[in-house]
Amino acid sequence: MQKGIGNHVIGDTFDGFMLIKTATKGTASNGKQFLTLFFVDATGEIDAKLWDASKEDVETFTEEKVVKIVGDINEFRGKAQMRIKSIRPAQVTDGVRVSDFLEKSPIDKEMLQEQLMEAIFEMKNPNLQRIVRAFVKKYHEDLFIYPAASKNHHAFVSGLAYHIVTMLKVAKQLCLVYPELNKDLLYAGIILHDIGKLHELTGVVSTSYTMEGTLLGHISLMVTEIKQVADELNIDGEEVVILQHLVLSHHGKAEWGSPKPPLVREAEILHLIDQIDAKVNMLNRALDKTRPGEFTERLFAMDHRSFYKPTFENDE
Amino acid sequence: MQKGIGNHVIGDTFDGFMLIKTATKGTASNGKQFLTLFFVDATGEIDAKLWDASKEDVETFTEEKVVKIVGDINEFRGKAQMRIKSIRPAQVTDGVRVSDFLEKSPIDKEMLQEQLMEAIFEMKNPNLQRIVRAFVKKYHEDLFIYPAASKNHHAFVSGLAYHIVTMLKVAKQLCLVYPELNKDLLYAGIILHDIGKLHELTGVVSTSYTMEGTLLGHISLMVTEIKQVADELNIDGEEVVILQHLVLSHHGKAEWGSPKPPLVREAEILHLIDQIDAKVNMLNRALDKTRPGEFTERLFAMDHRSFYKPTFENDE
Amino acid sequence: MQKGIGNHVIGDTFDGFMLIKTATKGTASNGKQFLTLFFVDATGEIDAKLWDASKEDVETFTEEKVVKIVGDINEFRGKAQMRIKSIRPAQVTDGVRVSDFLEKSPIDKEMLQEQLMEAIFEMKNPNLQRIVRAFVKKYHEDLFIYPAASKNHHAFVSGLAYHIVTMLKVAKQLCLVYPELNKDLLYAGIILHDIGKLHELTGVVSTSYTMEGTLLGHISLMVTEIKQVADELNIDGEEVVILQHLVLSHHGKAEWGSPKPPLVREAEILHLIDQIDAKVNMLNRALDKTRPGEFTERLFAMDHRSFYKPTFENDE
Amino acid sequence: MQKGIGNHVIGDTFDGFMLIKTATKGTASNGKQFLTLFFVDATGEIDAKLWDASKEDVETFTEEKVVKIVGDINEFRGKAQMRIKSIRPAQVTDGVRVSDFLEKSPIDKEMLQEQLMEAIFEMKNPNLQRIVRAFVKKYHEDLFIYPAASKNHHAFVSGLAYHIVTMLKVAKQLCLVYPELNKDLLYAGIILHDIGKLHELTGVVSTSYTMEGTLLGHISLMVTEIKQVADELNIDGEEVVILQHLVLSHHGKAEWGSPKPPLVREAEILHLIDQIDAKVNMLNRALDKTRPGEFTERLFAMDHRSFYKPTFENDE
Amino acid sequence: MQKGIGNHVIGDTFDGFMLIKTATKGTASNGKQFLTLFFVDATGEIDAKLWDASKEDVETFTEEKVVKIVGDINEFRGKAQMRIKSIRPAQVTDGVRVSDFLEKSPIDKEMLQEQLMEAIFEMKNPNLQRIVRAFVKKYHEDLFIYPAASKNHHAFVSGLAYHIVTMLKVAKQLCLVYPELNKDLLYAGIILHDIGKLHELTGVVSTSYTMEGTLLGHISLMVTEIKQVADELNIDGEEVVILQHLVLSHHGKAEWGSPKPPLVREAEILHLIDQIDAKVNMLNRALDKTRPGEFTERLFAMDHRSFYKPTFENDE
Amino acid sequence: MQKGIGNHVIGDTFDGFMLIKTATKGTASNGKQFLTLFFVDATGEIDAKLWDASKEDVETFTEEKVVKIVGDINEFRGKAQMRIKSIRPAQVTDGVRVSDFLEKSPIDKEMLQEQLMEAIFEMKNPNLQRIVRAFVKKYHEDLFIYPAASKNHHAFVSGLAYHIVTMLKVAKQLCLVYPELNKDLLYAGIILHDIGKLHELTGVVSTSYTMEGTLLGHISLMVTEIKQVADELNIDGEEVVILQHLVLSHHGKAEWGSPKPPLVREAEILHLIDQIDAKVNMLNRALDKTRPGEFTERLFAMDHRSFYKPTFENDE
Repeated sequence: MQKGIGNHVIGDTFDGFMLIKTATKGTASNGKQFLTLFFVDATGEIDAKLWDASKEDVETFTEEKVVKIVGDINEFRGKAQMRIKSIRPAQVTDGVRVSDFLEKSPIDKEMLQEQLMEAIFEMKNPNLQRIVRAFVKKYHEDLFIYPAASKNHHAFVSGLAYHIVTMLKVAKQLCLVYPELNKDLLYAGIILHDIGKLHELTGVVSTSYTMEGTLLGHISLMVTEIKQVADELNIDGEEVVILQHLVLSHHGKAEWGSPKPPLVREAEILHLIDQIDAKVNMLNRALDKTRPGEFTERLFAMDHRSFYKPTFENDE
Repeated sequence: MQKGIGNHVIGDTFDGFMLIKTATKGTASNGKQFLTLFFVDATGEIDAKLWDASKEDVETFTEEKVVKIVGDINEFRGKAQMRIKSIRPAQVTDGVRVSDFLEKSPIDKEMLQEQLMEAIFEMKNPNLQRIVRAFVKKYHEDLFIYPAASKNHHAFVSGLAYHIVTMLKVAKQLCLVYPELNKDLLYAGIILHDIGKLHELTGVVSTSYTMEGTLLGHISLMVTEIKQVADELNIDGEEVVILQHLVLSHHGKAEWGSPKPPLVREAEILHLIDQIDAKVNMLNRALDKTRPGEFTERLFAMDHRSFYKPTFENDE
Repeated sequence: MQKGIGNHVIGDTFDGFMLIKTATKGTASNGKQFLTLFFVDATGEIDAKLWDASKEDVETFTEEKVVKIVGDINEFRGKAQMRIKSIRPAQVTDGVRVSDFLEKSPIDKEMLQEQLMEAIFEMKNPNLQRIVRAFVKKYHEDLFIYPAASKNHHAFVSGLAYHIVTMLKVAKQLCLVYPELNKDLLYAGIILHDIGKLHELTGVVSTSYTMEGTLLGHISLMVTEIKQVADELNIDGEEVVILQHLVLSHHGKAEWGSPKPPLVREAEILHLIDQIDAKVNMLNRALDKTRPGEFTERLFAMDHRSFYKPTFENDE
Repeated sequence: MQKGIGNHVIGDTFDGFMLIKTATKGTASNGKQFLTLFFVDATGEIDAKLWDASKEDVETFTEEKVVKIVGDINEFRGKAQMRIKSIRPAQVTDGVRVSDFLEKSPIDKEMLQEQLMEAIFEMKNPNLQRIVRAFVKKYHEDLFIYPAASKNHHAFVSGLAYHIVTMLKVAKQLCLVYPELNKDLLYAGIILHDIGKLHELTGVVSTSYTMEGTLLGHISLMVTEIKQVADELNIDGEEVVILQHLVLSHHGKAEWGSPKPPLVREAEILHLIDQIDAKVNMLNRALDKTRPGEFTERLFAMDHRSFYKPTFENDE
Repeated sequence: MQKGIGNHVIGDTFDGFMLIKTATKGTASNGKQFLTLFFVDATGEIDAKLWDASKEDVETFTEEKVVKIVGDINEFRGKAQMRIKSIRPAQVTDGVRVSDFLEKSPIDKEMLQEQLMEAIFEMKNPNLQRIVRAFVKKYHEDLFIYPAASKNHHAFVSGLAYHIVTMLKVAKQLCLVYPELNKDLLYAGIILHDIGKLHELTGVVSTSYTMEGTLLGHISLMVTEIKQVADELNIDGEEVVILQHLVLSHHGKAEWGSPKPPLVREAEILHLIDQIDAKVNMLNRALDKTRPGEFTERLFAMDHRSFYKPTFENDE
Repeated sequence: MQKGIGNHVIGDTFDGFMLIKTATKGTASNGKQFLTLFFVDATGEIDAKLWDASKEDVETFTEEKVVKIVGDINEFRGKAQMRIKSIRPAQVTDGVRVSDFLEKSPIDKEMLQEQLMEAIFEMKNPNLQRIVRAFVKKYHEDLFIYPAASKNHHAFVSGLAYHIVTMLKVAKQLCLVYPELNKDLLYAGIILHDIGKLHELTGVVSTSYTMEGTLLGHISLMVTEIKQVADELNIDGEEVVILQHLVLSHHGKAEWGSPKPPLVREAEILHLIDQIDAKVNMLNRALDKTRPGEFTERLFAMDHRSFYKPTFENDE
């Protein structure tokens, strides 16, 4: 069976199907056009150059297309880069689908749905539960397929739901250690905190920002929508304002995008759980690509730090 | 006719009516209780001490009461402080009202209303105009009596409306110099930018922050409400998002409370007009109390700067 | 049975025993000396004034003494303050001990010891386990009675051990959600991260900083000592450096006292668990003294924020 | 008539005259030299490559030369770039002048002069007026042709005078809304605030920084010169110091180059008017190149923000 | 012979002459006036209270007066404070002068003058030497009596000249280690860097800031004056601009008051020598008042740090 | 005799030996491999390209090899770059050694050793002297050949010892001006402050960071080792803690890598002497490559500043 790009190293020749994520036209020093293609499959990604690209090539090899490629994997400025030897669009008879080439959540969609429903079922405060249920119903389709971000952490199919479900698990464990925490409030905050991203991001395959998302941000969009949904449900207790506050403050600081810092205990904890899950996810992805005794690449969203992978980790 | 507190200097004896803005109980080193009272009238304000306060005094002299006082004005740590010699609550026969003792806008309520309406009448974009009209109608009562803040700039009766109307005048002039500006958008942003303060502040006399205001802030409250009002009016064009953005970004920077910086030209200009009007207002108030050739007290909201009042200002 | 100071409100008369935490001499405006005493018992604390203090009073009422007091609780600048009516040193026949007046960990010393030992027993990596055992043995006496800080979080008897044990519980739960974490490394880091405080702080009753603690800090002291202990045990694998790194980086950032930021996954997680436990502890203490619907006092170690206590918290 | 470069799009072939703003030599991977030329005309600018440049080419095609070019406009890294097909120096018979190829102020030099003189004529304070007149006379030649900066805002012929005149218009309007402002002082500050740039920048065509400008800056140069000019005019009233202060503080903050922040009301307003005019100018230039519904390129001098151009702007 | 205030400790009774540096009126809780006097003599300083001050007392005991006092030295909030028992103005027959009560430079005025002249004599570059000579001549009177600051470092009679002369000594030594440094330029920069303080500070006894000093700062004043003096001497070589730059940049950073950072090697070194001399001076003053094994008070101008005085310092 | 690379300018042909410091493989746009080689000799350094590199070339021309080259020096993006015409590995018969091609300290190893020993001989405090002696003995071999850094200041053979010896000279001179400084403590701090770099850096030729160095840093490594060495010598006086503190705090601020700021006078001075020597060294290197009247390249470790080299420097 064909191996994915993630299973190839520099020096290999790749022969198989991948999805074009971005395609950019350029002109070489000899005056001829070339294409810079960014390929992905479910196992990884690679930059590639198609030299001497014809006008037809430029029109054919565009974003979101699946292609059959043969190419050599070289090193360029310390990173792998493919030099394409042959390329053609995938055909119906190839039996490949776009969705085969997208990285997916480690837990499948149905399981994520089930685990989310279980958590909602645990909630006792009727106001919080009803608001949460209304949102899950409203965004039933997108909620379980959207990524949590366009890059950095949880940037894969169902990434948003996976992020939510994992945070709920952490919250459940923390409530065992700190029983004074209001679990219902924490659960409601976790489920809703990033749902505004469904408006902020354009989609699942080529994920960029909407105008609305750029000008208002997923936090403000969600604060507004919680009020709308609560009004529709005729709920106006203090829970609504506090829940809006949890969403509003979950980035923790003004300079990180929250106009108010956490001012309710559970808002502070929501922020910390979000940090833990995002950071573990980013670290795991980087460490998976690193050998024991070496450092990861620099992680942009973690202050450009490069992390060391100890050699004794597997001894245990 | 009786002179206000603002017309007295250290060494004078004051004899007249004032409003108690705050009242705080203390215990002196001799074990006896005293009251620290903060008095205001329309001309100014002063701190005062009522030594050896009886239990009855503590119950009588409370916030928002008008009182008749005789007292000596001394200096304490570089500031004027009154030593109360006699004090009694105002009686019906004194013919004084709370509203007589609050500082007021230089332009009266009716005129502010008229000037605001004229500006709205100038607007041509129907979506923006309808949203603005709906808000002015909805908050008709409070909009023309609230202050713009609990302290710093425009902290007086009708201060909010005075701030809006003056900013509209500046906007009108700027549009003459820069005709490319979208005047309708700028007007709409100016009129709505601070209306969320009607929810954030508790009232006109003793102005503090509501729970909702503390946890969400006037900016988020207003972004939410613009969406609600637009929905009620069945308006959903791009104007709604842009107008929300103008309100959202009008503090200019994340660390000043705007989760998004201005990303539309008129949003940037709205921020600058707000700066000009707030700063001129604070500077004028401070310079009015300063003699030519001297420096004002330090102004908290202007980075603790102390401003010089030139001696040649009146030569002109 | 006698109620503690924490069960009294302004207006009450207190009659009982307390411990003097600090005693400061002053001269009143009438030229006479007075003492400012800071009293504590296991339920709370209060500032008090002893007016017209004789020379003998000054010599008698000093730090770490237990005294019998009768006094009125008044309000001074918004805080409770006691006016002492009578005071005398506790006598042998009173049957009171210093330790009765110190706030204690919610879990007793023996249980903390047991829970710590269980965690060490779970560890499989022999190098890490031996280093940890050596430290627990070396500091057997102080480790289970020291506070974790002189103020802010876990500033009570056995506070350090309580902080460690709670963090171990959180770590155990997180390892269930994220099984890829190296639990042994995380446990070792948690147990050792703050032990340097045994050198940094002067003691249990009146907790201040040692010269060594001020000039080097508990982090550097501990990094040095891990190396010493490992040398004595003839351990020099990579575990030693990584464990030093976990301690070195556990404050997360240079400006918070860590000369290196976390550069190993478990170091990042150790930092976050430390944040969670410290913050929950501070928030719980502040919220316990706050009524639903009100805000806590400003919390210095949490960026001077004042937190809201929702009214629906107890509905659940 | 020939269209300017600003009227061409990617894919077009350009055939016409342009001015070389900068010329840089390079060596291609094939070992041959090439020239990177930056062309401008009154309508826009473009980067171009002349491959296989001969030694003669390098000597011929230098800064401030006008050339006749035929070239194809391609896309390179998201920006337009010209591939030169033929190039020759302009000849006398071509009838083109350097000045034809420089972007100019929207208002011509004579009109700027006239408007500036009118403003000076409005001034009543003789000291301020005489100093201002002396400067305008002294720099009569350069003042009306220099740009206000080497890049960012008002980087075109007569940009400095255009910036001054527009700020004077804004000041005039603001004095109508805030009659308490000292108009003479504001006018004098506006006219002189950036004149130091005549020493700081090297010239009109290829604008870089002088040694004096780099080591002292236009602000310090001007503060020094105001004193010199005032001495020559035998003026030494407080106006001189205050005017120096307005220039000194007009960048608003230490980190923006003003060693003292504004400490006089008109200094604060001068800073804000400067902000408004610089920002409107930068925004207009960027928005002119942007289609409604799209975002501008990132603007370096506005914190790298990218601004949205609403689609309803032209509805009005 | 009478001992100075610096030779008294808490508990002592002081009986002697001191100079009033500041006098502030207050009203006690019993309604009577009192004076807070800040006394200095050549050995130290103390705060004092004169209770029940008569109107005549207030008029008699004012700034810059020498008085004869008897008073007890008590402790107040951790600092020494005098309770005045008797006080009278010094009389002609007392034979005391204001200058006897001011702290002086460790090196006398004549010696400072001589050492400064020797340094100037070492200079070889005629332009730099002539400018420096002109300044020393122009400010001959004030230069050798002014302090270098109103507080913090070198805040004593002849403090400015002492600071300059000590920096010249350091510069001379550094030029031995680093002979590539331009000694003439460094000497000139050192001598002129703080002379602007003669305009910025009001005088020797009660040192505050002039209007000119507040609005322009000693750096800008000096940059301006170097140009004036150079013009008068008909010097306009590069030395003038570079020397202005050394003065302009000697605070090192924009946020410390230098609009340009050092951009010439000797400017960088001037900044560092200034740092060394200011810091050693502040540290010595604080450590002189501290016992070995203890920490100094917090030093405002050194980031509020408190320094430790080792016990082995005197072993050597 | 053959001239070094530092004696060649753009346009020259170089013919001689150099050392390969780094070698990086790349693929050109024509699909062929090339090598980017970074050459050094004792006089300077240059980047070079070897186009159409064979597989054998890639294996032959690797780091730390000496090679014989003929190549043309061209300009590429404003910097010199060599185009290699012929290249071969140096042979035994060429009589060249790696050490001939490394930049060396201006003072030779033996002299540095002698000067260091003289300074230690001056010390009187036996504890400090014994610790210092133990370190010099322990690191006798590496101490006199290591650089002080991988780039920036003193990045040459024996750079560390040269940095130490020069700082000792500065300290000696400063102690003449400020005799109150504890010279022994200062000497001990200077000698030990950077010795941790022997563990942090990998070696002399290709200098990078060790894992230990990256995770703990040279400061923490040294603080730990001082304690170990003192224990071995049975020294435990206050000198040990203070000396650890000097090393710990010598970067001056938390954000520069010192978890504690200087809290002892000599620690502050050590930090400043380190600054002076590092900055003079960086400035001299940059100015040596700059012509009078021009600016140096931007210096990364000096806030990216570019320094001016005055034209009158050599007049003296």
